[in-house]
Amino acid sequence: MTTIDNPSTHTGNPYIDPYLNVPVNDPYIIVSADSHAGLPTADYREYLEKKFHPQFDEFLAERDKALEVSTMLGTRNEDYAKKWFEEHEEALRSGWEATRRDQELDGDGVAGEIIFPDADAVESRTCVPFGAGLGMSGDMDPELGLAGSIAHNRWLAELCSQSPERRRGMALVPITADLPRVLAEIRRAKDSGLGGVMIPAMWVNQLPYHDRHYDPVWALCEELNMPISTHSGPASRDEYDNHLGIYVTEVVWWPARPLWFMLWSGVFERFPGLRFGVTEAGCWWLPPQIWFWDRLALGQKGTEKLGGDPFKGAIKMLPSEYIDRNVFIGASNTKRRELGMRYEIGVGNIMWGNDFPHPEGTWPNTRAWLKKTFHDIPIDETRLMVGLSAAELFSFDLAKLKVHADRMAPCPSDFGQVTDADPTAQRLTDRWSPVKEVGRHWLTDHDFSLIP
Amino acid sequence: MTTIDNPSTHTGNPYIDPYLNVPVNDPYIIVSADSHAGLPTADYREYLEKKFHPQFDEFLAERDKALEVSTMLGTRNEDYAKKWFEEHEEALRSGWEATRRDQELDGDGVAGEIIFPDADAVESRTCVPFGAGLGMSGDMDPELGLAGSIAHNRWLAELCSQSPERRRGMALVPITADLPRVLAEIRRAKDSGLGGVMIPAMWVNQLPYHDRHYDPVWALCEELNMPISTHSGPASRDEYDNHLGIYVTEVVWWPARPLWFMLWSGVFERFPGLRFGVTEAGCWWLPPQIWFWDRLALGQKGTEKLGGDPFKGAIKMLPSEYIDRNVFIGASNTKRRELGMRYEIGVGNIMWGNDFPHPEGTWPNTRAWLKKTFHDIPIDETRLMVGLSAAELFSFDLAKLKVHADRMAPCPSDFGQVTDADPTAQRLTDRWSPVKEVGRHWLTDHDFSLIP
Repeated sequence: MTTIDNPSTHTGNPYIDPYLNVPVNDPYIIVSADSHAGLPTADYREYLEKKFHPQFDEFLAERDKALEVSTMLGTRNEDYAKKWFEEHEEALRSGWEATRRDQELDGDGVAGEIIFPDADAVESRTCVPFGAGLGMSGDMDPELGLAGSIAHNRWLAELCSQSPERRRGMALVPITADLPRVLAEIRRAKDSGLGGVMIPAMWVNQLPYHDRHYDPVWALCEELNMPISTHSGPASRDEYDNHLGIYVTEVVWWPARPLWFMLWSGVFERFPGLRFGVTEAGCWWLPPQIWFWDRLALGQKGTEKLGGDPFKGAIKMLPSEYIDRNVFIGASNTKRRELGMRYEIGVGNIMWGNDFPHPEGTWPNTRAWLKKTFHDIPIDETRLMVGLSAAELFSFDLAKLKVHADRMAPCPSDFGQVTDADPTAQRLTDRWSPVKEVGRHWLTDHDFSLIP
Repeated sequence: MTTIDNPSTHTGNPYIDPYLNVPVNDPYIIVSADSHAGLPTADYREYLEKKFHPQFDEFLAERDKALEVSTMLGTRNEDYAKKWFEEHEEALRSGWEATRRDQELDGDGVAGEIIFPDADAVESRTCVPFGAGLGMSGDMDPELGLAGSIAHNRWLAELCSQSPERRRGMALVPITADLPRVLAEIRRAKDSGLGGVMIPAMWVNQLPYHDRHYDPVWALCEELNMPISTHSGPASRDEYDNHLGIYVTEVVWWPARPLWFMLWSGVFERFPGLRFGVTEAGCWWLPPQIWFWDRLALGQKGTEKLGGDPFKGAIKMLPSEYIDRNVFIGASNTKRRELGMRYEIGVGNIMWGNDFPHPEGTWPNTRAWLKKTFHDIPIDETRLMVGLSAAELFSFDLAKLKVHADRMAPCPSDFGQVTDADPTAQRLTDRWSPVKEVGRHWLTDHDFSLIP
C-alpha cells in the first residue's frame, strides 16, 4: 500500500540504485534543489521583446516604490543590505555570471543546481521584468507577465548552456495567462534547454488549479518530462499590513496550497508521470498533513455522512502514494526537526537546497551546515536528500556530476558519519531503524510517530 | 521562559489545582468544549426583530438551494441523511430541548458543555437566519447577519437558563459589522447569561483581525471575561468547485488563521487577559507551527537580514508563551496522534469535545471513544483535557459540575487507566515522563520531538 520502506520512490534513473552501493565514504553528489539566478534588472532589456520596452522603462522607474514597501514590512533592513553588498560584491556576480557561479558552487561542495529566479533577495536588484519571478501570481498583467517571463527564460537558457551538466533552469511560466501561449512557452523553454517549470503559487482571481482548463499544461509537462514547482514568494500581502510574522507564516502556505488542489482533484491520478514540487516552503507542515489526508481517504470517523466515494473517483490511491509518486519538496535548508520526520514525509521526497545566493540560505557555509544537519543521518538517505533524488528528477547525468564531486565535494567522514570506530556508519542505520519501521504510523498500525 | 512543565497554564480557577489531587479514581468532570444547539430554522422567527420578518421569509424559501450546493460538494448524502433522521428522530430534539439535552449529556457522561450554533450538521435544518452560524464570515450582509445572530443569542440564553450550571453558550457576534452595535451585542449577550463569543473565522473583504479597529472588541471581551472562538465552517468555497478533499483540507485552516493575525500583531500582548480559541479544527497542525513561530522569534537562520526587532515591538514573549497564556484549542474528537504531541501543543491548551449532536462527533458513544483515545494518558492530564481546562476557562462552578459527574461520569478505571495491578496509574506517568521532559524540544535543547 505504501512505499515508505523504500527510501527512493523515484526509480526512473538507473544510476541511483547502483550509486547507493558505491564505497561508503565516496564523495557526496550534491545537487541544490533551490538556487537562484537573475540578471541585474536593467540588463533584461535585450532579452525582452522590443514592443515592451516602453513599459519596461516605466517598470524600472517604479522599482523604488517596491523597495519602500519591502522596508515597511521589514523584509529589508538598510544597514544589513549595505553590509551584505559591500562584503559580497564580487561573489554576488555569481548571480548572473556562469564562471563565477561555478566557483561558488565548488566552494560550497555543490555539483549541480536547480535554478529559480531572483538572485538578489536583499534588495531585488535582479528582479524579473513586470513582476514575473518568485512573486508572480495570477493577478499579474497576463501579457506583460508572460513577456517578462520569456525574457528571463531566454537569458536563463544562455546561463545554463555554460557548464550545462551542472545546471537545470526552471522556466518561468505564468500558467494563468493565455493557454496557447503558455503551452508554446513551455515547449520553447524545453527546446532551449531548460529543465523544469515554475508556476505561480497563487492564481488569485484566475482559475484554481483543480480546473480542467489546466489539463493541457499538466499533459505537456508530463510529456516533456518537465517537473513543475511553485516557490515561496507570493502571499496575500494586502491583508498583512506591516506585520512581518503574519507574512512569514503565510508565505510558506500559499506555495503549498496548489498541492492539495491538484491532489484531490485527481491531477496526479490523470497524469501519473507529472512531478509537482513545493520549493523553499520547508517540509515541516507536511507530516501531519499527509496523516490527515490519508485518514480522510481511509474513511475516518466523521466521513460516514459523506457516503459512497466522497471524492467522486478523482483519486484511486492514498494521498501518501501520490506524494511518493508525484510530489517533491524543495526543502532548502532542511531543519533537524524535519529530518526527524523524514519517514513520514518520504525520504525520497525531500530535496535539500542551499538557496544560493540568498542570505537566508547556507551559502557560503554549506559544508558546515550540512555537517551540522546530517551528522547522524544514515549515509544512503543523506545521499538521496542532498542530491540523488534531485539528480534523478531533473535527469542529470550522474557520471558527469561525479567528476565535479570527486574534485571538491565533502564525504561522509567530513560530516562525521563515518568514523574510525565505525567505518560503515552502522550505528546510524541501527539508531534509526525502529523509527523507519514505524514510518507513517497510521499505515503501520501505530498510534504515534516514533522520533528519537 | 516556557511553561511546558506545568500541564495547566490556566491557573485562574482555584478549583483546578486542588481538584487534581482528588482520589485517583474519582469520576471525570467532563466538559465538552464543542457542542451544538439551534432551533429548527423557522422557529427563530419569534426571536427575530419584526422588521426582518419579510427577509426571513425569503431566507426560508431559499434554503433548498443551499442543500443542493451541499449535495453537489458531497458534504450531504441523501441516503445517509434519511437514515440519520429516522434513527435519531427523538434524540435529535436535544438540539433545542433542554431536558432531552440533559439526558443525552448524561448518556455520554458529559457534565458540562460549551455551546456553538447549528445543531444539525446533516441537512442544516437548524441553521441560524441569514447565514449567521458556523459558516458566518465577513461577507454576510452586516445588518441581517447581526439580526440573525441576535435572534440565535436570545434563544440560546433561554436554553442556557435551564440547567445553567452545565452550560455556557457562545454568542454569535459578526465582529466585522458596525462596531458600536457589535460591542452592544457582546454586552447584551453577557448580561443575558452567555459565556463566550464566536466570531467569524473569515473577514473576507472586511478588515483583517490585526487591525486596531478591533481593539475595542478584544478589550471588551477581556473585561467581561468572555473567551472568543472561531469554529470550523467557513472556507473559500468558491475556489473548490465540487472537490470535497480540498474543502476538508482548508476548512480547518481558515478558522485557525485569525490566530496568527492576532498573535503577530500583538493582540495577546496588549490584552493579556484575552482568551482566543480555535474550535473543531483539530490541533494536529499546531506542533510544527509553534516550533516555526518560536524559531522565528528566536532569530533563526534567515532572519539576519531583517535586522533589529523585525516584529516592531508587537510581541514581547515567545509565541509559545502567548499560546499558553491566551489560546485554547477546542480540539473536539481528539486524535491519538494529537495526544502524542500534547507536550508541544501544551496539555492545558487542548480541550476535548464530543461535537454533540453532529454525526462526526463521538455522541452517543463518547464513553467508548474516550476510553479508546485516553486509555494510556496520565490521569491528571486527562482530567485537564476532558474537562477541567474548559471548566476553568468558562468559569464553571466545579462543585456543581461534580454533583452531575458523581451521578454518571466515567472514572479512570472505566478507561483502563487504573488497574488492579497498578491502582495509581503510575505506569502511565512513567511511560510519558521522558516525553514530557523533552516537551517543546526547541526550548529544551533537543533536536527532535520525543514521541513513544
